[in-house]
Amino acid sequence: MSQAALDAVVALLDLEAIEVNIFRGQSPDEDRQRTFGGLVAGQALVAASRTVEGHAVHSLHAYFLRGGDPHAPILYEVDRIRDGRSFTTRRVVAIQQGRAIFNMSASYQAPEEGFSHQFDSPLDRTPPPEELPDFATRYAPWAERLGDWYHKPRPIDIRYIDWEPQDRKVALPPHQRVWVRADGTLPDDPVLHQCVVAYLSDMTLLDTTLLPHARWHSEDVFMASLDHAMWFHRPFRADEWLLYDQDTPTASGGRGLARGHMWDRAGNLVASVVQEGLIRHMRD
Amino acid sequence: MSQAALDAVVALLDLEAIEVNIFRGQSPDEDRQRTFGGLVAGQALVAASRTVEGHAVHSLHAYFLRGGDPHAPILYEVDRIRDGRSFTTRRVVAIQQGRAIFNMSASYQAPEEGFSHQFDSPLDRTPPPEELPDFATRYAPWAERLGDWYHKPRPIDIRYIDWEPQDRKVALPPHQRVWVRADGTLPDDPVLHQCVVAYLSDMTLLDTTLLPHARWHSEDVFMASLDHAMWFHRPFRADEWLLYDQDTPTASGGRGLARGHMWDRAGNLVASVVQEGLIRHMRD
Repeated sequence: MSQAALDAVVALLDLEAIEVNIFRGQSPDEDRQRTFGGLVAGQALVAASRTVEGHAVHSLHAYFLRGGDPHAPILYEVDRIRDGRSFTTRRVVAIQQGRAIFNMSASYQAPEEGFSHQFDSPLDRTPPPEELPDFATRYAPWAERLGDWYHKPRPIDIRYIDWEPQDRKVALPPHQRVWVRADGTLPDDPVLHQCVVAYLSDMTLLDTTLLPHARWHSEDVFMASLDHAMWFHRPFRADEWLLYDQDTPTASGGRGLARGHMWDRAGNLVASVVQEGLIRHMRD
Repeated sequence: MSQAALDAVVALLDLEAIEVNIFRGQSPDEDRQRTFGGLVAGQALVAASRTVEGHAVHSLHAYFLRGGDPHAPILYEVDRIRDGRSFTTRRVVAIQQGRAIFNMSASYQAPEEGFSHQFDSPLDRTPPPEELPDFATRYAPWAERLGDWYHKPRPIDIRYIDWEPQDRKVALPPHQRVWVRADGTLPDDPVLHQCVVAYLSDMTLLDTTLLPHARWHSEDVFMASLDHAMWFHRPFRADEWLLYDQDTPTASGGRGLARGHMWDRAGNLVASVVQEGLIRHMRD
């Protein structure tokens, strides 16, 4: 359990209201070059959701424009582009030092019943997360060399199913499954669970695009999320295990495309994700 | 061949420049209740592309906000949110009578080489378009009853592969393949080919979400595109056949999600599409 690390993410997702449509998010002030994209997406979704009453978010589409500065706060400006009876739409721009670093649109809907179907669940051929090693177990052989990075509490628990990062030195098929969850307990607010899943959906997904290319991204590939799209299909809790089933249809022109479906343990398809990222080969 | 009908689409995609970042598109003035979504997406992509030099569009993300009036022109306002060395991003809002009817973001990239992979092509198990009936052949038995609608020239040639619209009275698997192309010859400008494919990508895709539900949409289901996302992977011509391979992972809450891949006849994956739409059951 990393309740304190998770609580820190929840605190980062609690934006300060500056004006009716303007919010400010704190940065984790981490020792990394760019702000984690999932945090910006999660904060932007919080900002948009603060301006909507009675409708629930069902999709978002975003672009990452510039690397965020993890040592400075981020301002979120919300444009209420549509307030409809059935649907509400918001646009958000994330700003640092006067420049847009990220833009997103999100759509909200009043509760509605209707047709229901979903792909067959892959759960019955997937090992449960309890049988798979957590981060500390996987990296234990290198704990001493990794130092502080190994011991840093992690808010998201990720369990690799098909192959682990260290297996990526050979070409692998264009798909991977991971179990993911917030590693602790979250408050019950369903909006927060959606924002936490937006946060964690940016993890592992883009790595999928390199599986066929026998590269481990820290070596010689520069990777950056370009866009991020999500669709929320059914209710879920982000602090319970979700199976994140990912594939990569193609890569070309320095870009890779990855798709993901998230399943709860009862076999419900709860969310879909598509992301394109820059995967730039730095030397050969 | 419907060269005249295709030329009319090309003319609609030739926007009038009002100011540096403002363009006006004409409407087809057709006898339909709402503007065809693919036309708005195509015109918005033309508007954004007019403001970009030297970079080519690789993705777009859009929301349909309100039904467009097919008897009035549409104004497109472009926001140059990022001009980068490798990537350029544009936001576009489509406006009629002072109200936003559509908003889109699109990303452009300088030419770049890199990793390349793609899913296995489904072409070798797909019948060629020449062996499949065109619209006139399929609807010939009902030509008299359909009247003018049957004889109207169509700019896009669509050939159904797995099942035709009239087969949808029984529950079908959650996927379908169609061949699509602009029915005539287009000028060589690659931007125009991308805009025409954005236009035609809005056809047949959302219908896929109803395949498992034994409904033919004109009967008792109200359908409307909610969003539209596209990724352009490799060069193509919109006036040559493209295999549009579609599936629907899920439907819930009155919404259906559909995905599509477009393949050229050489087996290249040239574009991917994801769309969520409202599929509202009007009576039961």
